Amino acid sequence: MAVGSGYTGEIFPVAGIKLAAAKSGIRYRDCFDLVLIELAENSNVAGVFTQNLFCAAPVTVAKNHIRSELPRYFLINTGNANAGMGHAGELNALRSCDAIAGISDVLVEQVLPFSTGVIGEQLPVEKIIAIAPELFVNLASDKWEDAAWGILTTDTRPKLVSTQVELKGKKVTLTGIAKGSGMIKPNMATMLAFVFTDAVINEELLNQLLKQFADKSFNRITVDGDMSTNDCCMLVATGKANISIDKLDDSDCAKFMKELQQVFIELSTQLIKDGEGATKFITVNIESGKTSEECLQVAYAIAESMLVKTAIFASDPNWGRILAAIGCAGIEDLDIHTVTIDIGDVRIVSNGRVDLDYTEEKGQSQMNADEITLTIGLQRGKFKESIWTTDLSHDYISINADYRT
Amino acid sequence: MAVGSGYTGEIFPVAGIKLAAAKSGIRYRDCFDLVLIELAENSNVAGVFTQNLFCAAPVTVAKNHIRSELPRYFLINTGNANAGMGHAGELNALRSCDAIAGISDVLVEQVLPFSTGVIGEQLPVEKIIAIAPELFVNLASDKWEDAAWGILTTDTRPKLVSTQVELKGKKVTLTGIAKGSGMIKPNMATMLAFVFTDAVINEELLNQLLKQFADKSFNRITVDGDMSTNDCCMLVATGKANISIDKLDDSDCAKFMKELQQVFIELSTQLIKDGEGATKFITVNIESGKTSEECLQVAYAIAESMLVKTAIFASDPNWGRILAAIGCAGIEDLDIHTVTIDIGDVRIVSNGRVDLDYTEEKGQSQMNADEITLTIGLQRGKFKESIWTTDLSHDYISINADYRT
Repeated sequence: MAVGSGYTGEIFPVAGIKLAAAKSGIRYRDCFDLVLIELAENSNVAGVFTQNLFCAAPVTVAKNHIRSELPRYFLINTGNANAGMGHAGELNALRSCDAIAGISDVLVEQVLPFSTGVIGEQLPVEKIIAIAPELFVNLASDKWEDAAWGILTTDTRPKLVSTQVELKGKKVTLTGIAKGSGMIKPNMATMLAFVFTDAVINEELLNQLLKQFADKSFNRITVDGDMSTNDCCMLVATGKANISIDKLDDSDCAKFMKELQQVFIELSTQLIKDGEGATKFITVNIESGKTSEECLQVAYAIAESMLVKTAIFASDPNWGRILAAIGCAGIEDLDIHTVTIDIGDVRIVSNGRVDLDYTEEKGQSQMNADEITLTIGLQRGKFKESIWTTDLSHDYISINADYRT
Repeated sequence: MAVGSGYTGEIFPVAGIKLAAAKSGIRYRDCFDLVLIELAENSNVAGVFTQNLFCAAPVTVAKNHIRSELPRYFLINTGNANAGMGHAGELNALRSCDAIAGISDVLVEQVLPFSTGVIGEQLPVEKIIAIAPELFVNLASDKWEDAAWGILTTDTRPKLVSTQVELKGKKVTLTGIAKGSGMIKPNMATMLAFVFTDAVINEELLNQLLKQFADKSFNRITVDGDMSTNDCCMLVATGKANISIDKLDDSDCAKFMKELQQVFIELSTQLIKDGEGATKFITVNIESGKTSEECLQVAYAIAESMLVKTAIFASDPNWGRILAAIGCAGIEDLDIHTVTIDIGDVRIVSNGRVDLDYTEEKGQSQMNADEITLTIGLQRGKFKESIWTTDLSHDYISINADYRT
């Protein structure tokens, strides 16, 4: 199941980026499960990685590699997370990087590995080594859709965004792909997301932009509150468009930033709309909080409440569950008598109790929609935050109970 | 669904306690939904209440009443939580207490109201007033089963424990009832639990015992991580057995404490075994932690992971999900290389990676059981904690998606 449709717009290749997907057999027979992305020489690369202490072997290796050399290749497999396998796992990640480095004559440190899939099985690295030459033969600048398909696991559709923006009379391209459907509550980065631009952006600024935008997009989504061992988000600037993004106060740069932010938000909400078992796309807005942190605390208490999520699955305006979630969000000095709750544009709770004009019919009319917005007013300050989440459906249970069978 | 069977032992009346249940029509037609419990004069009563800021009207009223007078009656309705209704809710709770006080000629403050059920609808207090006289007619010392049935909501069976202990040649009785199946992650108290003894216990000690034992029982269970607006746990000592529990170092007192603790643990695990949609009863033990708090942090991260719960529902030894949950439990300086994970008596993870002797068959053999124990070793200190939880099944979704329809 999924909410709405995926990306249907045009996909603009990014100068300096080539991609290839292959059917290595790591996941199932006859589906793309291995992707190679080649970055032009001197591309700048920024990355943020999962904060799960049990991070997977490829995350450890990718973090080491990006610290020592400018990356030239991303090697992404699905079907196997290469997590929980100790030293052997790292060795396997390194061996797969080595296969790519050997063919392309770059340093092994210039290859970054990414894996998602089942935790706790050895990565079948021989399959990667065997098919590596085929990947190089197929590298092309227009294989975005193949790549977007090739990184999926339980996702039902590829996640893609592509846009162009005109700066100083020249076109700059922004194209990104992502994957992720369950075990989604990223912290610093999500599942896997790769965003590319041909703008010129120095490494320091690139890192700053990635942190800033990932924080307001991939770090604002939750399907099930479970943080993956494998989350990575990469931002690449190839520089091939010869347009430099450097002055943050320049109006052209601001235009670019806005587009880049939109690409991040669009990709992360695509993940949610295709969240495991999702039948609803839910935006949780917290307004007038004392701090950003407390807004997020309340937002996640609502978004991760199984009772709120199952009520939304049933299109049931059972606002008592929202109220209960706010009440145990951990804000000790919250005065409940000032709290408001709106579903869409219907006010349900004012002054901490059911609004006098509220009727079940009004609530029901909002809950029937596929996309639902919950807005909570705290009346404590000037901060606000938004996060995105899914409902909790039978399909979520089926997908996760049957995942390995 | 539920795990195992409920309490099948003898139920010992507690001297000084009378109970009655009635079909008031608040919940469904033709089921007990209103319970009155009469406490002998001079009974001591201790109570702990939900920490949800949006606590229900009856909780507010009960807390006020217990502070001002010695309680004589508990009035418990199901089918309506009387929460989120503002001042009108408190008025309704008071009016129902008043109906009981009027008939029995006690002060209104000597009646404590308790409600669970749907949030956000006005309590139909006229139904309570109408049936109050019938409750008094039916009051009897042996109506424990009626009372246990009469406080249920989505529970599939009553929760009861009863035991007697011989102290100084005399018998002391301990009998308790409880309810709760979903929205269960108590903090200080659970859903509704009422434990009675005919021992003599002064108020100060009674409060101390309640806090201590509730903390290690009702505060160690979670079904869905959702804390109710209505949780209450009451401990009553009628004193009718003429056996005084006062010296904590006395061996007879110690014997009594042990029984009392067992009653609390038994009642709280009965809640879990009948948790919404539960097909498995899961004990999560965390050992060798640096503090109790960090043990609980890790335990709840596992017990509330939807992915761990769905895997257990499927009897799938998908230990990678346990590992991922530990890794994001928020213990920043955890050295994952010392972590061990056991399912039952099978070691799955040692040194933070899959154990060399582990096989899928060994894991599977443990996961097929109805009652599963997960033991995590942190190797950081001397503290340990245990909590109890359920799996996450299709029935949980059905129960909570259809709750109000």
